[in-house]
Amino acid sequence: MSSPETALLADLIRCPSVTPAEEGVLAILEAFLTPLGFECTRLKFEGGSSYPVDNLYATRKGNREGFHLLFAGHTDVVPPGDLDAWTHGPFSAEIVDGVIWGRGATDMKSGVAAFCAALLKAHDSGVLDHGSVSLAITNDEEADAVNGTRKLMEWAQAQGEKFDFAIVGEPSSFEIFGDSIKIGRRGSVSGRVTVEGKQGHSAYPERARNPMPALASIATTLDAPFDRGTEHFQPTNLEVTSLDTGNPASNVIPAKGTLRFNVRFNDTWAGETLLAEIERRIANADLRGCTARMEVLGPISKCFICPPDGSVATLRKVMEAYTGIAPNLATGGGTSDARFIADYCPVVECGLVGATMHQVDERVPVADVEKLTGLYAKIIEAFMTGDGR
Amino acid sequence: MSSPETALLADLIRCPSVTPAEEGVLAILEAFLTPLGFECTRLKFEGGSSYPVDNLYATRKGNREGFHLLFAGHTDVVPPGDLDAWTHGPFSAEIVDGVIWGRGATDMKSGVAAFCAALLKAHDSGVLDHGSVSLAITNDEEADAVNGTRKLMEWAQAQGEKFDFAIVGEPSSFEIFGDSIKIGRRGSVSGRVTVEGKQGHSAYPERARNPMPALASIATTLDAPFDRGTEHFQPTNLEVTSLDTGNPASNVIPAKGTLRFNVRFNDTWAGETLLAEIERRIANADLRGCTARMEVLGPISKCFICPPDGSVATLRKVMEAYTGIAPNLATGGGTSDARFIADYCPVVECGLVGATMHQVDERVPVADVEKLTGLYAKIIEAFMTGDGR
Ligand SMILES: [Zn+2]
Ligand SMILES: [Zn+2]
Repeated sequence: MSSPETALLADLIRCPSVTPAEEGVLAILEAFLTPLGFECTRLKFEGGSSYPVDNLYATRKGNREGFHLLFAGHTDVVPPGDLDAWTHGPFSAEIVDGVIWGRGATDMKSGVAAFCAALLKAHDSGVLDHGSVSLAITNDEEADAVNGTRKLMEWAQAQGEKFDFAIVGEPSSFEIFGDSIKIGRRGSVSGRVTVEGKQGHSAYPERARNPMPALASIATTLDAPFDRGTEHFQPTNLEVTSLDTGNPASNVIPAKGTLRFNVRFNDTWAGETLLAEIERRIANADLRGCTARMEVLGPISKCFICPPDGSVATLRKVMEAYTGIAPNLATGGGTSDARFIADYCPVVECGLVGATMHQVDERVPVADVEKLTGLYAKIIEAFMTGDGR
Repeated sequence: MSSPETALLADLIRCPSVTPAEEGVLAILEAFLTPLGFECTRLKFEGGSSYPVDNLYATRKGNREGFHLLFAGHTDVVPPGDLDAWTHGPFSAEIVDGVIWGRGATDMKSGVAAFCAALLKAHDSGVLDHGSVSLAITNDEEADAVNGTRKLMEWAQAQGEKFDFAIVGEPSSFEIFGDSIKIGRRGSVSGRVTVEGKQGHSAYPERARNPMPALASIATTLDAPFDRGTEHFQPTNLEVTSLDTGNPASNVIPAKGTLRFNVRFNDTWAGETLLAEIERRIANADLRGCTARMEVLGPISKCFICPPDGSVATLRKVMEAYTGIAPNLATGGGTSDARFIADYCPVVECGLVGATMHQVDERVPVADVEKLTGLYAKIIEAFMTGDGR
């Protein structure tokens, strides 16, 4: 007979919950959590120039004086791509030779299933009654993330909810299970620079102002280093992601061109100070009489870092006792929903190795899911019964 | 009663000979030239990945020992654009207050009409019998120019035709009639540079190779000066005409990008030496591990210059006597059909001011056309009766 976490994971994988389609995945979680004493609230958020998203907030208040642990995660998955390329169907949840296959197997239906199964253990052993545990589950982390965790956290705060510590169940291990947790993430901001000159004939450049050399100068100045990195972060990095003109006529000097960029920035910068530095560099570029204007594209993801003492120290001790390795404190990679939680309480990402995430043939060994469940159970026990604060 | 040149120009303008449609324009010239003793040959050239083009070669051999003067020009015109924007219809040839209106009025049906009318005078005065005059008229100078003057000259050479001097009747005056002739043109070559790196996620630049900084470096190095100009030419100039990537995803480092350029080059360079210099600059750019390859787009127009002594000196003396100004020896502007003639004999461009060419409301004062006819008559007389060689 399969473990509760394996059965739950299989149920979750069988829902083709490609963002933002919910496909019954949240009802499965409600059905699992309600018998454990969780009060479940379904929240549909909409607006913000994005599609409506289904979310679930579940909370169990054992001892209101005790520790309040938040688990955050997502049930949506990225599209499976070419179905024929999969060895086993992406929503089949087939278990072959101890490995469970399907979209979301690592990112991150396994994290959600393991945490719920850990709650079952903690409930049965009475551990949950020492404090409070809540879950903030969204069905949009992979796409816009506008009507997901950000609004869930705003809603929880409006309800008076206060958390001591949050764990996001994303794949965070680097090479082997438990070798790394993420205690922060770099910020991210994208922008477009439009350089305008004056159109003309390429035989008469003196009557035109070509924006191309200015564009090249801006690309070069933006590509230069921003800092050398900080204690917990790698250096800030800007990538020019596109240079575009769209001028097919070789005898025409174009009127304008654009440059797009994306920056991943560390705690040297706030979004505003970084943008000011970018503006300064553009103004100092060799503009040749052209004008350049910068606009931000999409939201600014701020950089956050969780202090490595307090709850993080407790978590590391539990992990080292369980796996035999003290996890590395990482901050690499892209953005995650943890950035929306960092404003409310210390937050880390702690989960599996994400080797096959977003790929064809995404899969996870059942043993790994059970190991993660065991770890989450130890973490819940440590925070509920100890004083992790 | 209007002058022969004005009547002929009006007849030519009334043919809507937008490249490559001939619309009867060459038959009008044949009808004018045949009574003067010209042998007319209609030549339809095709192939070369372009449309078929009608051409006319007309020749009158007076004294085969005498001077052989070639007149070259085109009867095709650029499209009229928005018809409603014209004050008088673009193919109406209306004469209002001494100005004749229509597409081709300056570029260059007026030049063709003036030369033919000058031949009428020269014929009537017996001047033509001292030497030979030929006309190479194409109906495609404004577009591909593949089946026009280039092939006409090849054909004439195959017939054993040898010319002492050629005049192209393009608008060549700068501000006032006769202030400038063109004794050469810069060469022109266009190309595309493709820079290939390795696609990746902008959060993991160490796993990718972004071609954008290399593209910017190439744009900057190509934009640097090539020379300081020569006795008759302005400096060689390269314009980057387009930088393109087409990557809409801000979190993706693109796999490749392209740069397009056009160079106008002087007699410091042959096409091949210039391309070698461009290749050298690309190889020395900061490529960051990316590969860059250059390809030439379209034909290479070579640079040519006509020595300012001999026939050019004769021409200047005639012009100064007629207009009171010694014409400036210019080489600016784009390419022209003169480049196809330069291989066979000395060639200059000598014509009106081109103020309204290629514009809506193209027009020319009748007095200017008559002045040009008078100049061409003096030129024909000087070369036929003197020894301009
Ligand atoms: Zn995820
Ligand atoms: Zn022309």
